[in-house]
Amino acid sequence: MEPIRLGMVGGGQGAFIGQTHRFAARLDGQFRLVAGALSSDPERARASGADLGLDPARSYDDFRTMAQREVRRKDGVEAVAIVTPNHMHAAPAIEFLKRGIHVICDKPLTATLDEAKKLQKAAEASQALFILTHNYTGYPLIRQARAMIAAGELGPLRLVQVEYAQDWLSEPVEAKGSKQAEWRTDPARAGLGGALGDIGTHAWNLAAFVVGEEPETLAADLHSFVPGRMLDDNAHVMLRYGSGAKGTLWASQVAPGNENGLRLRIYGEKAGIEWSQEDPNRLWFTRLGQPKQMLTRNGAGAWPEAQRVSRVPGGHPEGYLEAFANIYAEAARAIRARQAGQPAPDGVLYPTLTDGLSGMRFVAACVQSGKRNGAWVRI
Amino acid sequence: MEPIRLGMVGGGQGAFIGQTHRFAARLDGQFRLVAGALSSDPERARASGADLGLDPARSYDDFRTMAQREVRRKDGVEAVAIVTPNHMHAAPAIEFLKRGIHVICDKPLTATLDEAKKLQKAAEASQALFILTHNYTGYPLIRQARAMIAAGELGPLRLVQVEYAQDWLSEPVEAKGSKQAEWRTDPARAGLGGALGDIGTHAWNLAAFVVGEEPETLAADLHSFVPGRMLDDNAHVMLRYGSGAKGTLWASQVAPGNENGLRLRIYGEKAGIEWSQEDPNRLWFTRLGQPKQMLTRNGAGAWPEAQRVSRVPGGHPEGYLEAFANIYAEAARAIRARQAGQPAPDGVLYPTLTDGLSGMRFVAACVQSGKRNGAWVRI
Amino acid sequence: MEPIRLGMVGGGQGAFIGQTHRFAARLDGQFRLVAGALSSDPERARASGADLGLDPARSYDDFRTMAQREVRRKDGVEAVAIVTPNHMHAAPAIEFLKRGIHVICDKPLTATLDEAKKLQKAAEASQALFILTHNYTGYPLIRQARAMIAAGELGPLRLVQVEYAQDWLSEPVEAKGSKQAEWRTDPARAGLGGALGDIGTHAWNLAAFVVGEEPETLAADLHSFVPGRMLDDNAHVMLRYGSGAKGTLWASQVAPGNENGLRLRIYGEKAGIEWSQEDPNRLWFTRLGQPKQMLTRNGAGAWPEAQRVSRVPGGHPEGYLEAFANIYAEAARAIRARQAGQPAPDGVLYPTLTDGLSGMRFVAACVQSGKRNGAWVRI
Amino acid sequence: MEPIRLGMVGGGQGAFIGQTHRFAARLDGQFRLVAGALSSDPERARASGADLGLDPARSYDDFRTMAQREVRRKDGVEAVAIVTPNHMHAAPAIEFLKRGIHVICDKPLTATLDEAKKLQKAAEASQALFILTHNYTGYPLIRQARAMIAAGELGPLRLVQVEYAQDWLSEPVEAKGSKQAEWRTDPARAGLGGALGDIGTHAWNLAAFVVGEEPETLAADLHSFVPGRMLDDNAHVMLRYGSGAKGTLWASQVAPGNENGLRLRIYGEKAGIEWSQEDPNRLWFTRLGQPKQMLTRNGAGAWPEAQRVSRVPGGHPEGYLEAFANIYAEAARAIRARQAGQPAPDGVLYPTLTDGLSGMRFVAACVQSGKRNGAWVRI
Repeated sequence: MEPIRLGMVGGGQGAFIGQTHRFAARLDGQFRLVAGALSSDPERARASGADLGLDPARSYDDFRTMAQREVRRKDGVEAVAIVTPNHMHAAPAIEFLKRGIHVICDKPLTATLDEAKKLQKAAEASQALFILTHNYTGYPLIRQARAMIAAGELGPLRLVQVEYAQDWLSEPVEAKGSKQAEWRTDPARAGLGGALGDIGTHAWNLAAFVVGEEPETLAADLHSFVPGRMLDDNAHVMLRYGSGAKGTLWASQVAPGNENGLRLRIYGEKAGIEWSQEDPNRLWFTRLGQPKQMLTRNGAGAWPEAQRVSRVPGGHPEGYLEAFANIYAEAARAIRARQAGQPAPDGVLYPTLTDGLSGMRFVAACVQSGKRNGAWVRI
Repeated sequence: MEPIRLGMVGGGQGAFIGQTHRFAARLDGQFRLVAGALSSDPERARASGADLGLDPARSYDDFRTMAQREVRRKDGVEAVAIVTPNHMHAAPAIEFLKRGIHVICDKPLTATLDEAKKLQKAAEASQALFILTHNYTGYPLIRQARAMIAAGELGPLRLVQVEYAQDWLSEPVEAKGSKQAEWRTDPARAGLGGALGDIGTHAWNLAAFVVGEEPETLAADLHSFVPGRMLDDNAHVMLRYGSGAKGTLWASQVAPGNENGLRLRIYGEKAGIEWSQEDPNRLWFTRLGQPKQMLTRNGAGAWPEAQRVSRVPGGHPEGYLEAFANIYAEAARAIRARQAGQPAPDGVLYPTLTDGLSGMRFVAACVQSGKRNGAWVRI
Repeated sequence: MEPIRLGMVGGGQGAFIGQTHRFAARLDGQFRLVAGALSSDPERARASGADLGLDPARSYDDFRTMAQREVRRKDGVEAVAIVTPNHMHAAPAIEFLKRGIHVICDKPLTATLDEAKKLQKAAEASQALFILTHNYTGYPLIRQARAMIAAGELGPLRLVQVEYAQDWLSEPVEAKGSKQAEWRTDPARAGLGGALGDIGTHAWNLAAFVVGEEPETLAADLHSFVPGRMLDDNAHVMLRYGSGAKGTLWASQVAPGNENGLRLRIYGEKAGIEWSQEDPNRLWFTRLGQPKQMLTRNGAGAWPEAQRVSRVPGGHPEGYLEAFANIYAEAARAIRARQAGQPAPDGVLYPTLTDGLSGMRFVAACVQSGKRNGAWVRI
Repeated sequence: MEPIRLGMVGGGQGAFIGQTHRFAARLDGQFRLVAGALSSDPERARASGADLGLDPARSYDDFRTMAQREVRRKDGVEAVAIVTPNHMHAAPAIEFLKRGIHVICDKPLTATLDEAKKLQKAAEASQALFILTHNYTGYPLIRQARAMIAAGELGPLRLVQVEYAQDWLSEPVEAKGSKQAEWRTDPARAGLGGALGDIGTHAWNLAAFVVGEEPETLAADLHSFVPGRMLDDNAHVMLRYGSGAKGTLWASQVAPGNENGLRLRIYGEKAGIEWSQEDPNRLWFTRLGQPKQMLTRNGAGAWPEAQRVSRVPGGHPEGYLEAFANIYAEAARAIRARQAGQPAPDGVLYPTLTDGLSGMRFVAACVQSGKRNGAWVRI
């Protein structure tokens, strides 16, 4: 099967997330990068395109030109990856969606709720798909955790403890030349949330994906520990679910010793599960009163839902890029089905605009609760 | 040196905590159990005394008789361990304190704040010491963590994440004959808090011990998941410190897969530490930007504060009983000093009435916040 | 830069290792699969080619035809991956080498020493490169371990403890339809070694790569635990190095609970390191008398040698495919340099025929020692 | 029940192992130390006795006087703990055994086989018991592992991988004033084995205890890495069992990063178990093809054999001293039964002279094999 022709907006030289999307797109051979508007700086855009071996004619100075020209080509892009800072998601996404080009967009959805709603409209009006790369839902054992809960293995849920702790913003690195830190701590580009938007939305999405339900209300305590920082770098959030479950979500970028500590623990009446992104090939499962079990990806105790998105046998660790690539692989399946006028095959799962909007509402609710001194707020 | 003569109130046949106190008292040879009122049921009290090899004349039917008689003996008890359910702490403690007998009392302090205040008065009026067995502060690496923070190794603190998760109350075992569960879930005997009182106070105390500061305010979400249970079996609590630090405390007895999961993570501007009670011989320490270090009890990286309360070399694991015994060993040092009319030696540390009162206020504040839908409450 | 045109011999439908090579070749976009002789069964070869989207004209029935035709094409393959069972490595490799096409060959080198020598001659006579996919040397922290030892961080080495334990051959699965097991336990196809050849050679190679020295002599105790199995499924080997270091190598495929347990521990006068393939993003490093440090891939404590072959930041786990892809990436660098008539860039490292021959000698020495009841044998 | 009156030979000021025995003897209240010949230096013996609160009349200058006098006292010692260096085990043990006093002796049995045989004779001629403190067999989950294997949970055994790695002799500390190191590296006091005798015998004993069978033959490679050291500081040993199982034993005191790394892995046809002394409250158990299970001491998956020697619930870690105390507790049960003219109660297990002799033969066989360049030697 021919690879899907992919364009990219953002992700030029030095951009971590653009490169990640390219790895993910390439791993399964389902996409080929053929065009890009890789930077808002035209010179850099061109240099980046050359680095990636793009046809210079298809390495554009801006995404609008790219959209206009690509749509006219017979071999124009079928899908586009948007890997710009948050405030630059909506505009290009809308541009491509309205031309029927599928969009694979980095998270969080947008910087403002206003943009998010415009994007929603564009997506609803388009035949094209909108895929949001909440990549952590691509981990095989996260798929399994979701399936186990859906199958009732844990019984009715009681507790959802999710956390995402990092340490790279413990110092004011945004003032010392870190480009990554700069836009993430700038309200104009990041939106309402700092750690909340950058990693809190991942934690929120991951929990919702696995639990199969979102909290109804939350109470948040937000803080910026680093002097001068305008957005939160730590968020403590308590959660209440309509089903009666309770939870907490902790997002922090100022916790020394945490590289990328996304961890999920869910407890039901009958059993509990525990998973950590830094050790993603193991899912700990304990039935009440029985020994804890170590379920391994594609190994003993693996469910079909995990095996379906595994590439190598148990004991051969898969990681972040494989999980990210699973989102791309699901996107490819969905896009091909859509192109064939068919529904996506059974089991295909990827985050969508709905997830993106949910993340936006989560951030907004946290900010609102924070301003009201931690009052419980409907999401 | 002759062992200190010890009496015990409660802790008869089948009682877990009484046996634990006896192990702890024995390990270092600093105490000898010579008298007891081991059960409120006289027959059982006597049988328990016989089991323990007590002189039948000193195996009493009730603690009042014991106090009256022992104080008249030349070889009467010098200290008494109180290991009854919470609502039965104050009365015997007062009885012994007013006779100048040192009291080593299980936690939490009492079932009600009223009792706690009476006890406080009695303690203030007495020459005798009051030691509360918040045993987890006896772990050598907890001592080290406290010393490291006091020495500024972490820099100004930002985050205190403490949790204590168990699973043994996931089902209504109190209705199925578990004596341990029965009184702990009964407001009349346990007090205001369920999980809060039983384990939340440990978490609270541990954090305060290590941090060297207590939160000023908290916001709590309490819940009883097991139908019919009258006290909380899960508590989510957000914390704010006067210094500006923030934190969360989670106490749960309904989290399947957690046996005795007391865990502490503290992050400062410069470094972070992580410790888990189930793996107590390791303290994880990370200076910002440097590799995580595994500090081992009495091994590489051990501080004098940890070595002082270690018994065997690193690599030879110590556990729960050794930590508990450290409280007894500290008590012995303090008692001997008091008997000699001297201050306790440098470095001697044990939880006191102040800690007990703090725990009571913590529970009360949580309950109050819970009732006010998670409003922030002063402690 | 245009991807290198890659052919593949073997690796048709259902073959694990062929698929792995394709993932690895694709991840960095340095190779494009354009031709194949994917199975010795022509029908299956063609079907497999179609699955992979190969031009039917370049999906060959056999590797000889492929070599002859591809070499005549202007856009013929520049490199070929050989992913057949061991006894089918030499013939195709020679065929391509003698036509100047670079060979990327799965391990172990060949089934017999005789074939290995023929292959050696062909390689020496060819301008093309020969790359052996001892993929575990592609792990970033293995690169770092090698660099640390070379830099003297451990001091003179004393002990090398390497092991590779699996459990998938605990039962006679070769008699129950496992194709993977069938050829690996068949002397005609696997060669002299069973577990020794399949995984022992990996352990041998990994240790040599990191240590920078091979043992001079060894003493081996080989066994086939599964009745009827003709090749070893467990090997215990003691090692002696010329430098004075000692070691053991354990390879087993009958150890229940081990999925892919390749582990390496090396101790010198000054320090020790420990690494496990199933947790590859952490390297444990202990200077004598100091706390153990957790060095993380591309995180704190990472050396340039590890960062050079890392794709994502620390805390974002990389795994088996990334390590495998590193061998392909190194191959790409070496091939491009060779095509440009230049030496490989500084730092480029990949296993070669020399490593392959070493592995063959290792297996032969073990078998010889085994036959001589564990006598020490020169390698 | 009255404690058993205990004497001690050796174990004066500064001696680690003497103090350990005292902790172990005290924990359960089954022994009371009443007499001692605590040092071969009379002054130190007396000072040590005073430290321990011994009646000065029972703090002897030498073990012979102690034996003579104690046996004449009505309240004389019923049992004696011998905690001297290896070469000083036999003489005092014989002295007490011939007077009918039970002996609890540190390992290894003696420094020479000659002494061991004399001791054997004395023990056979005596009514008193001889208990050897191979303390690691006291760990509850080691008891469980033994029971599981005996019950056939693993199926017929295939592999026994045992190791005991430390690092404290990585440098010539014996030349720098370490008393502990001095005698352990001195052939006159330690006997034939260095690491072999000190820790190898523990590993040997532990494996035999759990497996229920000793190897028939072994092949050893011994080495002293530290210049000038006369006894081995590292031993690699391959093992063959009569049943057909194979194994390796590694003992090292020069492996930086290992504090007290006694680890045991046993694999059978049906399942495997893994245990590490530094994490003793967990036993990893994997049935072939099923998820690995974490069995916890006195928690989920605990067998009666483990619960019988556990003191606190699962999740409350027990450690080295508790395991050591279990040997003393078993000794107490056996001694009381013997005093009552009855057989030891069901389930009582402790290492005896037989284990000690086995350890001596193990060391001798290793040394012999080492001298014969690793030839297989019958034990």
